[in-house]
Amino acid sequence: MRNILIKIEYEGTNYCGWQVQNNGISIQQKIEEALFDVTGETIRINGSGRTDAGVHALGQTASFVTSCTIPAENISKSLNPRLPSDISIVSSEEVPVDFHARFSAKGKTYRYLIFNRQQRSPFWENKAYRYGKTINVPEMQKAAAQFIGTHDFRAFMASGSSVENTVRAIEQLSVVRERELISLEIMGNGFLYNMVRIIAGTLLECGTGKRTPGEIPDIISGLDRKRAGRTLPGYGLYLVKVLY
Amino acid sequence: MRNILIKIEYEGTNYCGWQVQNNGISIQQKIEEALFDVTGETIRINGSGRTDAGVHALGQTASFVTSCTIPAENISKSLNPRLPSDISIVSSEEVPVDFHARFSAKGKTYRYLIFNRQQRSPFWENKAYRYGKTINVPEMQKAAAQFIGTHDFRAFMASGSSVENTVRAIEQLSVVRERELISLEIMGNGFLYNMVRIIAGTLLECGTGKRTPGEIPDIISGLDRKRAGRTLPGYGLYLVKVLY
Repeated sequence: MRNILIKIEYEGTNYCGWQVQNNGISIQQKIEEALFDVTGETIRINGSGRTDAGVHALGQTASFVTSCTIPAENISKSLNPRLPSDISIVSSEEVPVDFHARFSAKGKTYRYLIFNRQQRSPFWENKAYRYGKTINVPEMQKAAAQFIGTHDFRAFMASGSSVENTVRAIEQLSVVRERELISLEIMGNGFLYNMVRIIAGTLLECGTGKRTPGEIPDIISGLDRKRAGRTLPGYGLYLVKVLY
Repeated sequence: MRNILIKIEYEGTNYCGWQVQNNGISIQQKIEEALFDVTGETIRINGSGRTDAGVHALGQTASFVTSCTIPAENISKSLNPRLPSDISIVSSEEVPVDFHARFSAKGKTYRYLIFNRQQRSPFWENKAYRYGKTINVPEMQKAAAQFIGTHDFRAFMASGSSVENTVRAIEQLSVVRERELISLEIMGNGFLYNMVRIIAGTLLECGTGKRTPGEIPDIISGLDRKRAGRTLPGYGLYLVKVLY
């Protein structure tokens, strides 16, 4: 038996999310079906974490145990022809038996894309959140700096979530504009449910003058979801990298 | 009667090309149908030029004459809700009566994208030509420099084309790598049929060692299509800008 780690890219538009569900087609299910095709084994894969409906990934990871004898590097090549074109296995490698895509992760990088133009773009439809009015990126950057560090991020967790420890460390949070595209990139040791999308919504509200960067420390320390900004849609979100 | 210029973005995947044809759905047709919806007039629009099946545009232009009284800037806003999500009218403005999107054009900029990775990407499928082996970008850049200037580009025209004057001026031709994506950008006063795709194919062959940059001047002066490289597929090509 070998333990295999795969790295996955997907466009999440056509899926109910990463995790197998009864009421929709998930990315995990598609990969498990392709693995059955390749190995003849019914394999449950362990993703680094779930992604919601419509969320994309440039570097999702998953690990699984298999008794198949295909060289580890070739597993990705065998899987891709059996997957739809919106899911791609970028690499596959053997990892130590105690490695687990989720429990071994030390952190993650996410990206949130805002397309700042009134007219929609065929190339960013379902791939970035469109906002047509003026956005002040320097204000967003000032606000972003307030998030860096270890804080109780309860105010940035979807209400109804039941996680006990809501303390997380954000190591990096950058906001970069390239023409009409504003890219938020956030790296941390872990994220609460909807945390990136709520931070993105709060930063956008700083960029549109609805809030000031100076309010951020109070919003964080207030621990109240209602004081933070709105949750931006899932289709602007990308899981970029899982750090091990 | 007013003369209107519109700027158009489209993802060409689902179309037989720009121009109205009997055997498929064209981008031009979709826009003319939307214009009929908005104005009640049967309007024939004049594109800056045709694009082939699968070719994309970030800045295609078209002009047309209308007697409708909608403010020119609002025409784009009226059209977009009547167009599929892979076509977007980015702007609309009134232009002088003697302006013509095609005949007034002084030049064009095209981009050709090569995705240099063995595994396909959900985000570049149908939007870049995928090539899995090593590409030497500095060799492509050396070759690109040989194209600059005014030359008879007959060797870089699809065989069977019947254009008399095959002399064109290429003002810029850059090759830039950003991680896995190699972007060719070419600006000139006009392009022969398939010229950008044949230049892209020839440059790629310089990047893969099949040709050397030193051969380019001879290929150009030979005026023989068979000596130039292969025509890369249309789905990697973008009409970026029409210059007036």
